[in-house]
Amino acid sequence: MQRKVPVDTHIDNTGFGSNSNMEGARLTNKDGSINMIKTGLPFITRLSIYHSLLRMPRFRFWAMILLFYTTVNLFFAAIYYAIGVDQLAGGTLGESVFARFMKAFFFSSQTLTTVGYGHVSPEGMVANLVASCEAFIGILAFAVVTGLVYGRFTRPRAFILFSNNMLVSPYKGGRAIMFRLATYKNNHLTDAEATVTAAIHTREEGKETTKFYSLKLEITRLNSLALSWTIVHPLNEESPLYSYSHEQLMAGKLELMVTVKAFDDHFSNTVQQRTSYTAAELVYGAKFRPMFERAAAGAATVLQLDKINDYERVALNEGTLESLGVKP
Amino acid sequence: MQRKVPVDTHIDNTGFGSNSNMEGARLTNKDGSINMIKTGLPFITRLSIYHSLLRMPRFRFWAMILLFYTTVNLFFAAIYYAIGVDQLAGGTLGESVFARFMKAFFFSSQTLTTVGYGHVSPEGMVANLVASCEAFIGILAFAVVTGLVYGRFTRPRAFILFSNNMLVSPYKGGRAIMFRLATYKNNHLTDAEATVTAAIHTREEGKETTKFYSLKLEITRLNSLALSWTIVHPLNEESPLYSYSHEQLMAGKLELMVTVKAFDDHFSNTVQQRTSYTAAELVYGAKFRPMFERAAAGAATVLQLDKINDYERVALNEGTLESLGVKP
Amino acid sequence: MQRKVPVDTHIDNTGFGSNSNMEGARLTNKDGSINMIKTGLPFITRLSIYHSLLRMPRFRFWAMILLFYTTVNLFFAAIYYAIGVDQLAGGTLGESVFARFMKAFFFSSQTLTTVGYGHVSPEGMVANLVASCEAFIGILAFAVVTGLVYGRFTRPRAFILFSNNMLVSPYKGGRAIMFRLATYKNNHLTDAEATVTAAIHTREEGKETTKFYSLKLEITRLNSLALSWTIVHPLNEESPLYSYSHEQLMAGKLELMVTVKAFDDHFSNTVQQRTSYTAAELVYGAKFRPMFERAAAGAATVLQLDKINDYERVALNEGTLESLGVKP
Amino acid sequence: MQRKVPVDTHIDNTGFGSNSNMEGARLTNKDGSINMIKTGLPFITRLSIYHSLLRMPRFRFWAMILLFYTTVNLFFAAIYYAIGVDQLAGGTLGESVFARFMKAFFFSSQTLTTVGYGHVSPEGMVANLVASCEAFIGILAFAVVTGLVYGRFTRPRAFILFSNNMLVSPYKGGRAIMFRLATYKNNHLTDAEATVTAAIHTREEGKETTKFYSLKLEITRLNSLALSWTIVHPLNEESPLYSYSHEQLMAGKLELMVTVKAFDDHFSNTVQQRTSYTAAELVYGAKFRPMFERAAAGAATVLQLDKINDYERVALNEGTLESLGVKP
Repeated sequence: MQRKVPVDTHIDNTGFGSNSNMEGARLTNKDGSINMIKTGLPFITRLSIYHSLLRMPRFRFWAMILLFYTTVNLFFAAIYYAIGVDQLAGGTLGESVFARFMKAFFFSSQTLTTVGYGHVSPEGMVANLVASCEAFIGILAFAVVTGLVYGRFTRPRAFILFSNNMLVSPYKGGRAIMFRLATYKNNHLTDAEATVTAAIHTREEGKETTKFYSLKLEITRLNSLALSWTIVHPLNEESPLYSYSHEQLMAGKLELMVTVKAFDDHFSNTVQQRTSYTAAELVYGAKFRPMFERAAAGAATVLQLDKINDYERVALNEGTLESLGVKP
Repeated sequence: MQRKVPVDTHIDNTGFGSNSNMEGARLTNKDGSINMIKTGLPFITRLSIYHSLLRMPRFRFWAMILLFYTTVNLFFAAIYYAIGVDQLAGGTLGESVFARFMKAFFFSSQTLTTVGYGHVSPEGMVANLVASCEAFIGILAFAVVTGLVYGRFTRPRAFILFSNNMLVSPYKGGRAIMFRLATYKNNHLTDAEATVTAAIHTREEGKETTKFYSLKLEITRLNSLALSWTIVHPLNEESPLYSYSHEQLMAGKLELMVTVKAFDDHFSNTVQQRTSYTAAELVYGAKFRPMFERAAAGAATVLQLDKINDYERVALNEGTLESLGVKP
Repeated sequence: MQRKVPVDTHIDNTGFGSNSNMEGARLTNKDGSINMIKTGLPFITRLSIYHSLLRMPRFRFWAMILLFYTTVNLFFAAIYYAIGVDQLAGGTLGESVFARFMKAFFFSSQTLTTVGYGHVSPEGMVANLVASCEAFIGILAFAVVTGLVYGRFTRPRAFILFSNNMLVSPYKGGRAIMFRLATYKNNHLTDAEATVTAAIHTREEGKETTKFYSLKLEITRLNSLALSWTIVHPLNEESPLYSYSHEQLMAGKLELMVTVKAFDDHFSNTVQQRTSYTAAELVYGAKFRPMFERAAAGAATVLQLDKINDYERVALNEGTLESLGVKP
Repeated sequence: MQRKVPVDTHIDNTGFGSNSNMEGARLTNKDGSINMIKTGLPFITRLSIYHSLLRMPRFRFWAMILLFYTTVNLFFAAIYYAIGVDQLAGGTLGESVFARFMKAFFFSSQTLTTVGYGHVSPEGMVANLVASCEAFIGILAFAVVTGLVYGRFTRPRAFILFSNNMLVSPYKGGRAIMFRLATYKNNHLTDAEATVTAAIHTREEGKETTKFYSLKLEITRLNSLALSWTIVHPLNEESPLYSYSHEQLMAGKLELMVTVKAFDDHFSNTVQQRTSYTAAELVYGAKFRPMFERAAAGAATVLQLDKINDYERVALNEGTLESLGVKP
């Protein structure tokens, strides 16, 4: 009969400070990266070149490799030109400055890639020495590129697609916050585990504080991410969101930080993907439409990835939650 | 005295929906992959090229590499031919169109592989530029191939052989479902762990539902997969299969999804292999014949992998299970 | 007052069968591999080429690579010779059969390694085609070798040195079985965990059975394998060896299978090493001499790896264990 | 009312012996490596070349590669010179001994890198054979270098910056030992876990002993290492340091060994970093200044890495801890 007063069950081991800045900024970006800037150390010390080159978009990566190749060739071409193109025997491009420079440039590229046709060849002592260095650099650069390409290929990734919105849906006579996810590539994840941490930024007694809560989920662990997974946090009296009014949550101060960890079946390693939902991405009174369907008899189940954001508006049952702050 | 009514102990975190399609189709294929189709995103978005190239059969992989090599060579040969083969000095193949094209083709292959004999060499500006690009592409392609070859080599695999059938065998005065497995390569797995999930598709009150159960195994974890491992699920009152009639199980609606996870001793990583058994692969009243034998004194134990499917028909003792639904 | 009758606490999830062959043969070899032969499948199916090439001794590995290089060169040299060495322009080795074959051989090696000097070059259509294939094969072979070399380099290994013998030493007024181990390379292992399983082969009522027991250790887990670790199994009433007479243990039927798992600090992965001790390697009444010493003030501790097998004979105290079967 | 006598809660599974040498020497170096020397085995047996090459500073690594390249070239140049430079056709460097040697040197470098211009080419049988070997060695060396470069790139590292000092700060009406840490690269660590082991070297009854204690931390596990993490060990009656006088701790005998383990978000593997603090690095009566600040509204939080060592002197409250040995 007695209405339970929710206990303050906030947690303090999220790694974010209680005075983190949430004034309109998310703690975690939509792509899962932390919205934070590090200062105070030289850029080069703060940079992990390998991390950067591995996470760079594909097109930009290959463009950088091409740029590197051209730059190194121009650099060595300039050296050969400075030494004197007459130290490079053979070749019939012509005697203009441009033709002579291009002869040096093409010789450089033939050396760097270790093609070495030899129709142009180094005859002088200095040109020979430079070519010897360039071929060596070519080999090493190749080693680096091989490593990078392989690293990019094999970087463990979860390839999880999250729904754009989280919904407040009817759930077992009450309500629940729901969002869903699915793997969108031909990978297969098992032992998937989700954790959801809520960050709520409030002004208490004139002081701004960010409190963090670990949200209880209906199902925390899934044996297989074969189909889509709808993650459900029931908005009942055990929920820490219970003690906040709808206005507080909606005022842009709520953020749900989501981590999904799973075991990649093909590569036998653990992969992880993160995202976050802010109050602006919360749809009040809606439920997801099914995103997989039974195919014809004898056929496989079909998962429709384009439907991951499909929801329909529904009325929320008011009964049991009437007195909760989460009611609009 | 009182017959226990089995509690419905079905689980709902398998990742498969309760309305998954089992109309004659398995949930998990024999090779462990999920029997599901993903739609709604462009093919290229859904495809992880690396996953595909790594799981491709060996022959097909090398054929694709060879096809790629030939195609790129033909492509560049066409370019050199278009530029004019006279920009390629040297070579004595002849003056026919075919001979001139082949000269371009061989020059291309010498450039792509960075062999660069130089008996044929690029003399014009354009040919030099194209050759410079081709050698660069050759280097990068090589980097990709090296990565792929290494990735295929090192892909963690369990190399487990499962018996084709699962048997209902006599077991401790009752019965049990049994199947067995063994590693078939010169790898060694330790800390092997098996989980078996039963999917049962039934029509309850005109509605089709798939229920999932986690099956209790006699031994769940093995220190070493040195010999074969017979996995045993006792068909007693604790078994969720207890509440289903033999007809139900046999009507093509039962599927056992098996996952074996283990630690690979040589590579120090966790490997996993999955398979599934349907009711059609259930042999009623049979037991496995031993598949390892004592060798002569002083010698090693011999594991006979060809006997993994060997079983003999036996009578099931009817005593304790007489009243169970699992009785035929 | 009442002498406790030891409970039979044998375990049956070792992965070895209770009718495994121990007639003079170990279950686990000294190097940790399982003493077992697999039959019944074609050799090639049973072989994981990658596993084999990675575990091969270093010298043999490089010899195989050299053999491969020579064989492929001889193979292609034979093809070029068959086509006709006159299709290979240039070269001044001579006109004898040997010189002509060697010209083909050296041309082949220049193609396979993609050196391609070009002083010998393919002129005919067929020679060009073969050379084009050979260079391609060279590139792919190189990719494979790169993968293998890298795989061998990075294969996670524990580099643990075990003492040759296990001792029965005085321990806390009683006795204990002890052996010790240390890492011998400049690697650093943390979170080391040891498990010891005893296999005892007995003839009970005319039937030979192998029983397995998990042995209780004084310390099972060590934070850091900085120094040596002496693993201690107290021979008290809780020990399963309690119920066996000294004669039984000594009759060549006891085997202790040891697994040490740890976290490699530099590579951030889990490594594992196994070994086994048979009764023949048991020294009765001895204790290990210290193998590390305090260096001068301010200096590091010194671990003397050559002393790992150093022990001295000591008398065992007879008191509490007088009535145990483990007494000689 | 009764003052609790602290129980001796020392642990003995640290891997360091109780008679380890702490006479002015740390057990763990500041960079986390163990301060220990291994002897008794040949250097080459104790050396893991791969471990060494991977942990070598970047500059030294590339210098070693360059040295290797030069040495191998000089070696083969000497061989070609010994065979007779006239076996190398072509080249116009001159007839002096130096010029002839350099011709051999440049030919060697062109062979080793597989550039093979061919303007200098092997004509004699022996020179051909040596060149064939050198190109083969070049290919293999390249494979090794590619592996090393990739291994260095991908070596899992935590990139954690620790504060130089540990402080005794006011804490909840009492005191606590504090130090802090932050990741300084663009990596992101989750599930960070810290363990702190205290080593205390004392002279008890004329005998020197080192005792180890596992220290209780306020927060042991952090979901995300997004900001800095201040690790706090409360100096209350539960602390093992309670039973030591300030003089004992300060006399250079206290060492705190710290291990931080976390999950690298981008590479999906576990990384670990260690360090240690000695009594000499303990600042008594100080607290850390904040090292992150709220940026302008809408912007990200700013973590100032250069402030990690910033602290200010503060008075310690004496109240509850007055009677503790840790009071100065």
